[in-house]
Amino acid sequence: MAYENEQLHEEKVFKDPVHRYVHVRDKLIWDLIGTAEFQRLRRIRQLGTTFFTFHGAEHSRFNHSLGVYEIIRRIIEIFQGREHWDNSERLLCLSAALLHDVGHGPFSHSFEKVFNLDHEKWTREIITGDTEINQVLRRVNDEFPQKVAEVIAKTYENKLVVSMISSQIDADRMDYLQRDAFYTGVSYGHFDMERILRVMRPTEDMVVIKKSGMHAVEDYIMSRYQMYWQVYFHPVTRSAEVILTKILHRAKKLFEQGYKFQIEPTHFYSLFNGDISLKDYLALDESVMLFFFQNWMHEEDKILKDLCRRFINRNLFKYIEFNPNSSYKQLVELIQLFKEAGIDTDYYLEVDSSSDLPYDFYRLGEEGERMPINLLMPNGELRELSRESEIVEAIAGKKRTDHKLYYPQDFVDNLPEGAVKKRIKEILQG
Amino acid sequence: MAYENEQLHEEKVFKDPVHRYVHVRDKLIWDLIGTAEFQRLRRIRQLGTTFFTFHGAEHSRFNHSLGVYEIIRRIIEIFQGREHWDNSERLLCLSAALLHDVGHGPFSHSFEKVFNLDHEKWTREIITGDTEINQVLRRVNDEFPQKVAEVIAKTYENKLVVSMISSQIDADRMDYLQRDAFYTGVSYGHFDMERILRVMRPTEDMVVIKKSGMHAVEDYIMSRYQMYWQVYFHPVTRSAEVILTKILHRAKKLFEQGYKFQIEPTHFYSLFNGDISLKDYLALDESVMLFFFQNWMHEEDKILKDLCRRFINRNLFKYIEFNPNSSYKQLVELIQLFKEAGIDTDYYLEVDSSSDLPYDFYRLGEEGERMPINLLMPNGELRELSRESEIVEAIAGKKRTDHKLYYPQDFVDNLPEGAVKKRIKEILQG
Amino acid sequence: MAYENEQLHEEKVFKDPVHRYVHVRDKLIWDLIGTAEFQRLRRIRQLGTTFFTFHGAEHSRFNHSLGVYEIIRRIIEIFQGREHWDNSERLLCLSAALLHDVGHGPFSHSFEKVFNLDHEKWTREIITGDTEINQVLRRVNDEFPQKVAEVIAKTYENKLVVSMISSQIDADRMDYLQRDAFYTGVSYGHFDMERILRVMRPTEDMVVIKKSGMHAVEDYIMSRYQMYWQVYFHPVTRSAEVILTKILHRAKKLFEQGYKFQIEPTHFYSLFNGDISLKDYLALDESVMLFFFQNWMHEEDKILKDLCRRFINRNLFKYIEFNPNSSYKQLVELIQLFKEAGIDTDYYLEVDSSSDLPYDFYRLGEEGERMPINLLMPNGELRELSRESEIVEAIAGKKRTDHKLYYPQDFVDNLPEGAVKKRIKEILQG
Amino acid sequence: MAYENEQLHEEKVFKDPVHRYVHVRDKLIWDLIGTAEFQRLRRIRQLGTTFFTFHGAEHSRFNHSLGVYEIIRRIIEIFQGREHWDNSERLLCLSAALLHDVGHGPFSHSFEKVFNLDHEKWTREIITGDTEINQVLRRVNDEFPQKVAEVIAKTYENKLVVSMISSQIDADRMDYLQRDAFYTGVSYGHFDMERILRVMRPTEDMVVIKKSGMHAVEDYIMSRYQMYWQVYFHPVTRSAEVILTKILHRAKKLFEQGYKFQIEPTHFYSLFNGDISLKDYLALDESVMLFFFQNWMHEEDKILKDLCRRFINRNLFKYIEFNPNSSYKQLVELIQLFKEAGIDTDYYLEVDSSSDLPYDFYRLGEEGERMPINLLMPNGELRELSRESEIVEAIAGKKRTDHKLYYPQDFVDNLPEGAVKKRIKEILQG
Repeated sequence: MAYENEQLHEEKVFKDPVHRYVHVRDKLIWDLIGTAEFQRLRRIRQLGTTFFTFHGAEHSRFNHSLGVYEIIRRIIEIFQGREHWDNSERLLCLSAALLHDVGHGPFSHSFEKVFNLDHEKWTREIITGDTEINQVLRRVNDEFPQKVAEVIAKTYENKLVVSMISSQIDADRMDYLQRDAFYTGVSYGHFDMERILRVMRPTEDMVVIKKSGMHAVEDYIMSRYQMYWQVYFHPVTRSAEVILTKILHRAKKLFEQGYKFQIEPTHFYSLFNGDISLKDYLALDESVMLFFFQNWMHEEDKILKDLCRRFINRNLFKYIEFNPNSSYKQLVELIQLFKEAGIDTDYYLEVDSSSDLPYDFYRLGEEGERMPINLLMPNGELRELSRESEIVEAIAGKKRTDHKLYYPQDFVDNLPEGAVKKRIKEILQG
Repeated sequence: MAYENEQLHEEKVFKDPVHRYVHVRDKLIWDLIGTAEFQRLRRIRQLGTTFFTFHGAEHSRFNHSLGVYEIIRRIIEIFQGREHWDNSERLLCLSAALLHDVGHGPFSHSFEKVFNLDHEKWTREIITGDTEINQVLRRVNDEFPQKVAEVIAKTYENKLVVSMISSQIDADRMDYLQRDAFYTGVSYGHFDMERILRVMRPTEDMVVIKKSGMHAVEDYIMSRYQMYWQVYFHPVTRSAEVILTKILHRAKKLFEQGYKFQIEPTHFYSLFNGDISLKDYLALDESVMLFFFQNWMHEEDKILKDLCRRFINRNLFKYIEFNPNSSYKQLVELIQLFKEAGIDTDYYLEVDSSSDLPYDFYRLGEEGERMPINLLMPNGELRELSRESEIVEAIAGKKRTDHKLYYPQDFVDNLPEGAVKKRIKEILQG
Repeated sequence: MAYENEQLHEEKVFKDPVHRYVHVRDKLIWDLIGTAEFQRLRRIRQLGTTFFTFHGAEHSRFNHSLGVYEIIRRIIEIFQGREHWDNSERLLCLSAALLHDVGHGPFSHSFEKVFNLDHEKWTREIITGDTEINQVLRRVNDEFPQKVAEVIAKTYENKLVVSMISSQIDADRMDYLQRDAFYTGVSYGHFDMERILRVMRPTEDMVVIKKSGMHAVEDYIMSRYQMYWQVYFHPVTRSAEVILTKILHRAKKLFEQGYKFQIEPTHFYSLFNGDISLKDYLALDESVMLFFFQNWMHEEDKILKDLCRRFINRNLFKYIEFNPNSSYKQLVELIQLFKEAGIDTDYYLEVDSSSDLPYDFYRLGEEGERMPINLLMPNGELRELSRESEIVEAIAGKKRTDHKLYYPQDFVDNLPEGAVKKRIKEILQG
Repeated sequence: MAYENEQLHEEKVFKDPVHRYVHVRDKLIWDLIGTAEFQRLRRIRQLGTTFFTFHGAEHSRFNHSLGVYEIIRRIIEIFQGREHWDNSERLLCLSAALLHDVGHGPFSHSFEKVFNLDHEKWTREIITGDTEINQVLRRVNDEFPQKVAEVIAKTYENKLVVSMISSQIDADRMDYLQRDAFYTGVSYGHFDMERILRVMRPTEDMVVIKKSGMHAVEDYIMSRYQMYWQVYFHPVTRSAEVILTKILHRAKKLFEQGYKFQIEPTHFYSLFNGDISLKDYLALDESVMLFFFQNWMHEEDKILKDLCRRFINRNLFKYIEFNPNSSYKQLVELIQLFKEAGIDTDYYLEVDSSSDLPYDFYRLGEEGERMPINLLMPNGELRELSRESEIVEAIAGKKRTDHKLYYPQDFVDNLPEGAVKKRIKEILQG
């Protein structure tokens, strides 16, 4: 029997706290889950440093990836037999859903920024390169890995398939909103996914939503809005990320300066050199990062040591509201004062700005953008969601930005009394 | 103001997915949570290798420790003003609840077995030794650390306090049953804790339960029974533990034989030497373990390499029901056959037996046993639970044991065809 | 198109708080729901007088009937294509599930007892008699109503079909346990129905459960046990039922004595005469009962008036534990004392005994018994549940009985001081 | 001891599916719950005809009233010891919360409209008139009933107390949103009430919300918005209400015309005469209504009979979108056509318009309006919610109206073919 038709002897079932059960019948999917590269996702947290703010949020990308797969599996069940749905795309969809995040590195956000990496590129390489995942996919046929990569890259020709994985209301977002709400314990993030799935319909080039399900979609958009501001952009999480970024910067700089580490950071060499291979990349995960950060707590270099202690023992930076545009002068003064006080502003002062577009229909066409949500009206027409929903219209396209200034309160408190300390405190207390 | 009376400026609240909120008002508790030793619990999973079976179960002991604290906090609220409750024991109870698991090592179960360690001893040392926790506790007074350690060790003179932390229905068990059910996603593990807390009453030497709450307690006992057999003793989890144990044994043996590791397992030296200091112990966590296991996947030694690959990539041992008592001869034969086939039975064949006493009132008095559950009857008498509850009586003291034989199926499948392979397969297929 | 194959233009969906959605595609089912006799179930509460104890339990049999239908619908989905499942029985199963309770009267328990009625007989008559339901069913074919009635009566030849509706783990029980738990708000009554449905398998003559699902079934049996004792047999509910029974007895007696009611109880005449037609029966519901009870609060007859006020205003009888077997003499004495005090013991003193067999496999074969639960072992054998499950074995067949004595505390309190009152109080206080 | 200080021997606890437990300690509250007038609320549904749309929504006002009481009880716990909170108002708050809906009649919405009644006036009369409730309240003191009535009427001098019961985010709304969501089973209606309660603060003249809780309040406003449009204004519910209103109109008209009813509608006489006493009013409930509607199904009058059959058997009117302002001519034509077809347009054609202001801060000051939501900023200032929240700002004050035209589809279908029928169908199909 062709590999793509092989079914497991008996369906495998994963108990999932969010979707109750994840069902696997296809040998292909089962084999993909068993690969080393997919298992590696167990060692990368879904929400990076968020566990410092919400202690329950310790779940991994493995978790989320299974969830996205399961949602796509349910959507396909609903699409069965409907016009525009081509069931020969089924395994492609499922594989893309399962693998869409496989290229993420440890604490990806900071990690990618410091080392100028792009997890989407790594996802592609893992799927098409010399990996167990690639071997499994090629058993379908030689072009299959490439097709999976294209779906994830949104360049695949069947745009319906792309929109299931990447759009304003795709399986990815539906899983992570619910999952992250579940693990953090916040009361936002809940919406009636079962209802949304039941009103999803395939069209030639995208998934649309029957008008009758509009209110469930409104609820979903609101959940997203709340999750962004309550969870994803939480200032404490960002404080931990600031420190993490500083650690990586410092270690890289020390490496470049020929600093002698007590335990050689072998896993970081190629990263520091900007010349990382797929094999090296896959060897990185959060246990590796945490291992070295713990070692570095005992390094000679005072900055590296201090930052690692802060991260490992959760002694984070404090923050204040601070708009760098309107308060530019104060920022310049603060940098000057910190320098006078002997605090290295490269590592101990940072402005972080987060912003979100809760629903950004109008940016369609801009590079890399997700597709809008279209409603299928009773008369068969399509209408973009914000034209029908007052609530969505009200928040669509409203970019909101939050600026915070991060700094070590303990350093400031420990400064000798005097004009510098006094003025720093004045500025920080607004 | 005395340190033990210091309150936080504003109550701190942790969002907890199980208890909704964890409330902290006491400066002492806040400071304990901030110590390096307590933060270390974030890097030790609550359920060890269970995440290989239930992918949701990635939560840490940090999580659970906050939960036990919160339950005790609520119990104390209910006890306020009641006879037998001495409110001067409040902070002691809260501290003991928070710290009761602080001595756990990475994957404690296997870890303690291989290196002959005892997490309870380490808990004591962390509380009374040279640690940040000890410094914080001593701010109350010099005897306070010792008292906290005694409560956890069940030797403290106020047995009421001990029974809140350690009994058949203590805060520890109530938290982990609910928490582990939540994260694994199983439907067992739920019971009406709010009801149980409301019917708890302090007596001179233990917490008792008003008769009217008996049915909620029955539900709790049943949850426990189900969680043991569905989650805690799950054979897949035990398979991963078997492999983990073998890895540690192998590494230790290689070390003893003077084997040259590619990256020196510095963190393990004192463990291998059987001479581990408190500082070394605290430097160990699951990121350290996983770091070395990943390195060891590339070692020369074939056994260490193979076992680590199995663990990291979740390529676990298969298992069959196997009672070593009644099938002793077959086990001997199997060992012989494995040897003939060139498979090292020290590492690739293991009988694991798990057993539970779902409610063990009658063993009271035996060393180390938890206290029984007593019901407070309307007439003021106490009666042991199993005398009133048919259900509890039915399962009380029934020790159930589950025996499994673990082995690498792939090794057996890859043996050359012949009498040995044939006979091995016969035995393994019962 | 044959009526039995007619599908609704668009699937109808009921939002159900217990099963989330109830799905209807068959025209037949939709038409049955629309009949006057089925709509009547909205005016009959699922749990009779339980709302006096658990104020949330105001749900109707309409609610429950849709739920049983939905569960059967899901079971059939799982049975599709499996051996032993004959899909031509599909509509029969669904109809029987929907209609299984259609013969219930208002507050059926007391109602049937006083007027010597049997709701199962009425169910049969409604299905086969001159009703809208019968007309709808006959559109399938002339024998169809009879077959539906047989499935409900457990006499239908296909015992597999019968066991789906009536067995120890049928759709009826699975719905009501969950539904009643939901509405009362108790924490019992929850079990993993999704899991149970997934492991149900059709055999030639009954539904069986795969061994791997045994623990979910144990949970279900325990839920049942707890629901019986915490909800269904709650002494306050029974107190209201005692009063209700007395009201009906009194009204009947007055009628037989030619008493002149202020508003003629027209709806009760044929009941009182023991000669009730199907049309009369269907005209009865709880609004009718409550209408008359409210009128009777203003009747001349002191007993009827008092009992009705008690019921309507929830001024119920008090109760004490009282075993009429062991305390026979006291009961006799109490009756004598009440008479001396001028309290009519026909209406103001009642011993009520409730008993349950939580799982009664061994009574198979006795008339009217539900079928046992059989497990399908991996080797294809069937084994009765209690042979595999220690917990079920522990509670199987243990008949537990609870005796209570009900009486009006206010009457006793208002007696003139003296020997009679003193002695009554002595007995009642045990 | 003064009655207002009397505590129950043992706290009474109601199991509530929404708030888990309702706690009662005060003798006064317990006595109020036991009154005939409060028990009557068990016979009046919280959501009127909504159960025809959402079958789970069969809960009574008794249910909701206990819930509002419980929320106020929890708010008071949080207010204890805070500035501006005067604990001598405690029992007044609790009583007003419990009794705020006690004047509701059966299916109040239609009922009040037809008979020109006002449940708020009846609430006042029940509290201050010759009732058991009044007797209980007067045991506190002679002015107490009047004060309770004033709180409910929003005229009480302590505006803080008033705002707890009646404002944009009062205990009333918080209970019904959650409760109605629970019973209907919709996924809207959930918000984090525990969080909202924790951030509520008393001020001199109103309850305010700490800024940090703004997002929970946003969620609450959104829930309200969704509940209005998904549940409260559901067109099927309104269809049943239209019919109900027509029934009452018809019966009144027949009465006025001297029509001879088969069973005399004694309970309606004073209503029809427009001269209803408190005693008569209290004798009305939904069982009485349903009793007569069932009788009227067999009346001579064809219209009354038809309407009652529709209501009892849920054979409701169909509806279409229809804006009477823009489609005035079509409405006039339709009325004409119906008349030609012999259909009485007084009873068989109705335009119903529903509208909501999800959050109406700016109408403050208009008669009868609820108070706005004010946020307590970190600097101690108050700011009206919509100035801080983009989402609330977006929907505040946007009045949305939904117009529907209701008519009996079966009547239209059964018209003889011809120009009239054809034109009617044209208009109805838009």
